[in-house]
Amino acid sequence: MKVLITGGAGFLGQRLARELLSRGELKDPDGKPQKITELILLDVVAATGFDDHRVRIEVGDIAERSVLEGVIDDTTSAIFHLAAIVSGQAEAEFDLGMRINLDASRLLLEVCRMRGHRPRVVFTSSVAVYGGEMPELVRSDTALNPQTSYGTQKAIAELLLNDYSRRGFVDGRVLRLPTISVRPGKPNAAASSFASGIIREPLNGETTVCPVSRSTKVWLLSPRNAIASLIAGLEIDADVLGMQRALNLPGISVSIDEMVAALREVAGEHVAARIEWKVDPRIDKIVAGWAVRLDATRAEQLGLKGDASFADVIRSYIEDEKIRLT
Amino acid sequence: MKVLITGGAGFLGQRLARELLSRGELKDPDGKPQKITELILLDVVAATGFDDHRVRIEVGDIAERSVLEGVIDDTTSAIFHLAAIVSGQAEAEFDLGMRINLDASRLLLEVCRMRGHRPRVVFTSSVAVYGGEMPELVRSDTALNPQTSYGTQKAIAELLLNDYSRRGFVDGRVLRLPTISVRPGKPNAAASSFASGIIREPLNGETTVCPVSRSTKVWLLSPRNAIASLIAGLEIDADVLGMQRALNLPGISVSIDEMVAALREVAGEHVAARIEWKVDPRIDKIVAGWAVRLDATRAEQLGLKGDASFADVIRSYIEDEKIRLT
Repeated sequence: MKVLITGGAGFLGQRLARELLSRGELKDPDGKPQKITELILLDVVAATGFDDHRVRIEVGDIAERSVLEGVIDDTTSAIFHLAAIVSGQAEAEFDLGMRINLDASRLLLEVCRMRGHRPRVVFTSSVAVYGGEMPELVRSDTALNPQTSYGTQKAIAELLLNDYSRRGFVDGRVLRLPTISVRPGKPNAAASSFASGIIREPLNGETTVCPVSRSTKVWLLSPRNAIASLIAGLEIDADVLGMQRALNLPGISVSIDEMVAALREVAGEHVAARIEWKVDPRIDKIVAGWAVRLDATRAEQLGLKGDASFADVIRSYIEDEKIRLT
Repeated sequence: MKVLITGGAGFLGQRLARELLSRGELKDPDGKPQKITELILLDVVAATGFDDHRVRIEVGDIAERSVLEGVIDDTTSAIFHLAAIVSGQAEAEFDLGMRINLDASRLLLEVCRMRGHRPRVVFTSSVAVYGGEMPELVRSDTALNPQTSYGTQKAIAELLLNDYSRRGFVDGRVLRLPTISVRPGKPNAAASSFASGIIREPLNGETTVCPVSRSTKVWLLSPRNAIASLIAGLEIDADVLGMQRALNLPGISVSIDEMVAALREVAGEHVAARIEWKVDPRIDKIVAGWAVRLDATRAEQLGLKGDASFADVIRSYIEDEKIRLT
């Protein structure tokens, strides 16, 4: 089985790749396990750290048709489309966000359509598709009402993927990811970057600034369960999915205060004390507009799992990233 | 004031043009009436029947940037974007629908953005943005869930118009039109074409075939009130609209049986008897998926009006089109 990951040099892309290589197989559309024979990692920079004959590293601009034609052929069975311009950057650089989040997503669907073999496409969307006046619990039939260009572009790509699936051009699955926390590495331009930073930096012995107020609630998922959901999402039987291809992934709804309390519980007061507080109105406004509790019943019924608690999320981060508590 | 109508040679476009010329003025963004000095009618064919120094007829492909740049300058104050590929045709010709309903709409917004003067743009959307499992009364917060490519393309254009408005590139207004009935002229490729045909043809002394079952309900608006709503929609104060630019226009929910009963009431049994019944599964399936009752409270609060009854709709058609009852 041939598998493509766009955004394959990113954090989730690399982690997904490692998990796929470790499993060695994926279910085919009939539910039968098939060996992964080729795993293409496409990104604007080369994915590194893969020494595996199954891996093919490709560098290119995903908004270029020839690049996509070079990585999708009529035997590509599974596509994880993770490449995206993150929320903060898509708000600051409108044209770039439109080009990658909208045009490239559409182009990917078009290349699949041209190949004609109806590949499975997992597309990562975001809770940022919701916004404005929302019910306390966002349901699966709550109107998408994005308040950012990022959320708009994701919502549009969702609509495209639904229609391309309905027409039989692809077999698409949209997974609306909660904010992923805790991400390792450096802060990025996502408005949600702090949701990892306020845990990661203190655990690294560094101080960090939290740009949103303590009572702000966020909807979170650990990288571990995000990766498991991406794979489970690909393997869901198309007939079970039916016409509605979008799923809210199960998350946990926690306030910043509760996140800090969990950090204190797991790592101690001296670690939690490394957070400084200074509201950044630009970030605070974006984050305050996000949905904080979503009905993920359908995803759960399909076997996709969230985390038990945020303390558990921190513990899995410490384990996965081999952090030494001091 | 300079005004542009795309789809200006179409039925609604021509009728809107005549109404604007007759009124002679539109409110500016501050609510002050301003004389219409130029009215551009853009379409793929030349609009005819206008002998008025204010009218400029333009023929061109709206998906070509140069065409739009030729009709939108930084003094264009009001744009009615009506050009579209109708539902049946967008389903049959996917690429054409994407090109006109999505790409051209985006291009129009881009040209406005480039001009930099934040013109008011009225965009006609459709109840076809709703679909799948719907509540009995579709609310303003019901999720868009289009089940056709036409509905998908309209939903995407709505999202774009909202984001371009939020960013201050345009001052957009989306009006979700009910099925317009009674349209004069010939049947067209819209799946809703019958909703005019079953009234128009019998009134013309011709037999017609109804392709949907008698119990099917539809959500209707007369051309007269549609045109009034387009103009009122343009004139709504931007501050009152706020962030949510889409409005469900007020319609009436009637079954085909009730439409025929109204025709019988207004024109007699011998006229209603000119309808033949033969379900076309392709049309029936599309129409059965449409929303049949929508909450239009917000539009009504903003002064937009629907029709009192379908018998009234037929009477206004007879009056407007100078039909002689036989």
